[in-house]
Amino acid sequence: TSLKIGMIPADGIGKEVLPAAQRVLEALGSAIPKPEFIPLLAGWGEFNKNGKALPEETIRVLKEECDSAMFGSVSSPSHKVAGYSSPIVALRKHLDLYANVRPVSSVPIPGQQQSFKCDMVIVRENTECLYIKQETISTNPDGSKIALATRQITSRASERIGKMAFEIALRRGQERLAAPKGKESWWKGEPKVTIVHKSNVLSVTDGLFRESVRSIKEGTDRYAGIKMEEQLVDSMVYRMFREPEIFDVAVAPNLYGDIISDGAAALVGSLGLVPSINAGDNFVMGEPVHGSAPDIEGKNIANPIASIRSAALVLSSLGYVEPAAKINAAVDAVLMEGTYLTPDLGGKSTTTEVTDAVLKRL
Amino acid sequence: TSLKIGMIPADGIGKEVLPAAQRVLEALGSAIPKPEFIPLLAGWGEFNKNGKALPEETIRVLKEECDSAMFGSVSSPSHKVAGYSSPIVALRKHLDLYANVRPVSSVPIPGQQQSFKCDMVIVRENTECLYIKQETISTNPDGSKIALATRQITSRASERIGKMAFEIALRRGQERLAAPKGKESWWKGEPKVTIVHKSNVLSVTDGLFRESVRSIKEGTDRYAGIKMEEQLVDSMVYRMFREPEIFDVAVAPNLYGDIISDGAAALVGSLGLVPSINAGDNFVMGEPVHGSAPDIEGKNIANPIASIRSAALVLSSLGYVEPAAKINAAVDAVLMEGTYLTPDLGGKSTTTEVTDAVLKRL
Ligand SMILES: CC(C)[C@H](C(=O)O)[C@@H](O)C(=O)O
Ligand SMILES: CC(C)[C@H](C(=O)O)[C@@H](O)C(=O)O
Repeated sequence: TSLKIGMIPADGIGKEVLPAAQRVLEALGSAIPKPEFIPLLAGWGEFNKNGKALPEETIRVLKEECDSAMFGSVSSPSHKVAGYSSPIVALRKHLDLYANVRPVSSVPIPGQQQSFKCDMVIVRENTECLYIKQETISTNPDGSKIALATRQITSRASERIGKMAFEIALRRGQERLAAPKGKESWWKGEPKVTIVHKSNVLSVTDGLFRESVRSIKEGTDRYAGIKMEEQLVDSMVYRMFREPEIFDVAVAPNLYGDIISDGAAALVGSLGLVPSINAGDNFVMGEPVHGSAPDIEGKNIANPIASIRSAALVLSSLGYVEPAAKINAAVDAVLMEGTYLTPDLGGKSTTTEVTDAVLKRL
Repeated sequence: TSLKIGMIPADGIGKEVLPAAQRVLEALGSAIPKPEFIPLLAGWGEFNKNGKALPEETIRVLKEECDSAMFGSVSSPSHKVAGYSSPIVALRKHLDLYANVRPVSSVPIPGQQQSFKCDMVIVRENTECLYIKQETISTNPDGSKIALATRQITSRASERIGKMAFEIALRRGQERLAAPKGKESWWKGEPKVTIVHKSNVLSVTDGLFRESVRSIKEGTDRYAGIKMEEQLVDSMVYRMFREPEIFDVAVAPNLYGDIISDGAAALVGSLGLVPSINAGDNFVMGEPVHGSAPDIEGKNIANPIASIRSAALVLSSLGYVEPAAKINAAVDAVLMEGTYLTPDLGGKSTTTEVTDAVLKRL
């Protein structure tokens, strides 16, 4: 059997980092079923060429023919363009990839000034909040305009993302207990889930989010060993910068999750390091957290690590935990050695050189 | 004549830091009209006592009898409480204090590990976005719940906050040009306004925000010397942590402004340092950016500096620029000396001792 992976590079550096992930997956040999990569179209470039940011054929192939997928990055126009809508947001919805899981952990990289201790997973709700994109605009008699957007929070989506967060916290706790000598985590206490919201202002919507997540822990003994805390989103951003080491798993509605994961990325040195998966109950799509970075597009200097790590996350959620760990160990070795680093980390290596270095250490 | 200042300590450490600001204002002597402080009620504590988080009498006195005001901080219940609504959000609306101006600048403090170069002003829209608090909730036949909130962006509110941002950038540019030798800013280029939004997802509401702010610069030659840039809010949080020195003035819708100002506070060492004013066309209310901090309430260890600096902002926007500068210079001297620091800055001094130190250097 083979592993069918839909590859959607989309725009900008997505086209450079996805091939890097592909090379790494190919190099795993018999550790995984032979991967078969199915190139698929989407993006702002595709919209400009053929009028669709997310062709139906892409969705069909993903649903009918693929075991998983990898997404690159997408450019968006800064102004409203009729008929255009972000394909990544649409993909998450179409495939019901309701969780965006973003592990952010620091590796000591030579030459990096800041060294925050950070080892957290951000679990971002991926289907609702303001991302339902229900917006209207109207013009008043005096010519001024009023625009409205709807923010939706449901108990169902909040509960399932809450469950995902507690499951991840449980697993992390077990992994920490099982860590070999010399590789222990600095985290000494129980696993912890931090609920991020702004219920002091949005008492109804964020109130529902917070209660739904809380009900997951309160409804079972399974999570009895997991601490539960809350942070207002503004305070969360503040604390993440002051003491990132106090966080284990953070769960947040869509937009807050988007914002705090970029914040966390800053702590570990570069957005180019942070991977994610968009996960549903039956499908998973890897996606580096970084954007399409038009300023460095086509130069072969984009950091491939976020994309390579995203591939590892995909493997591990398909059950190939060992090969995923192998990839991550190779990446960590390259970072800690510090010889092959892309410019975002202060180095001079190309995308290809960093990928080669990872391959050599596999 | 006298200066009538409404004092609303509200909850928690607001009750400790507002008196500190009052002492500093009193110590200015004939540099300002004799201040008269009018104590006013509001807050979660007040709600629990008398059933109103913001008594009508407080609004009336502010509107009819005061030249300006100082607000402390407010505690909020984490769950929805019938009849309770955040008094600070309500005050901003009632007095049409449409701009929340938050200058964040770093002062080298002995003993602080991180030293980011940061000297920016966050100009936060203060009346709309999700803060209009129009929320509904309903129960589906299966018992699950759906909650909706409305996010409102108008051209009018976005234009006036845009104008405020460009005016502040203009003034800062002039101040930098006039800075005496040895006190030059590191900022060498033109003044800059960064528009923060998320128009790649919210193309209608944030699209309107962005266009309205842009139209302010585009509609006149007055701001020809000011650069205009844009950042998506997630990217903004990332960049602020990676290179805070590239920002001058940032303008943002309400919620993004809330989040990024806490982020900026982390950069300068403590939320306890960051002041703000809530400003309208005819009224100004100072407010430290920090919260009510129930964990340290009543211990006399809250940092009074955010509150003292907020008082300076109030003075300066009433036209008392010299006395305001005097306060800021005294505060900076205390910080740079590093002898009197509250625990949030790694020191052991009390609120009273830090205030005494500021008074001595006035
Ligand atoms: C490109 C954009 C729509 C997207 C988002 O906001 O979800 C991105 O920022 C991300 O985090 O994946
Ligand atoms: C207390 C809360 C309602 C408030 C806000 O979100 O505006 C606070 O965080 C602030 O920044 O002043």
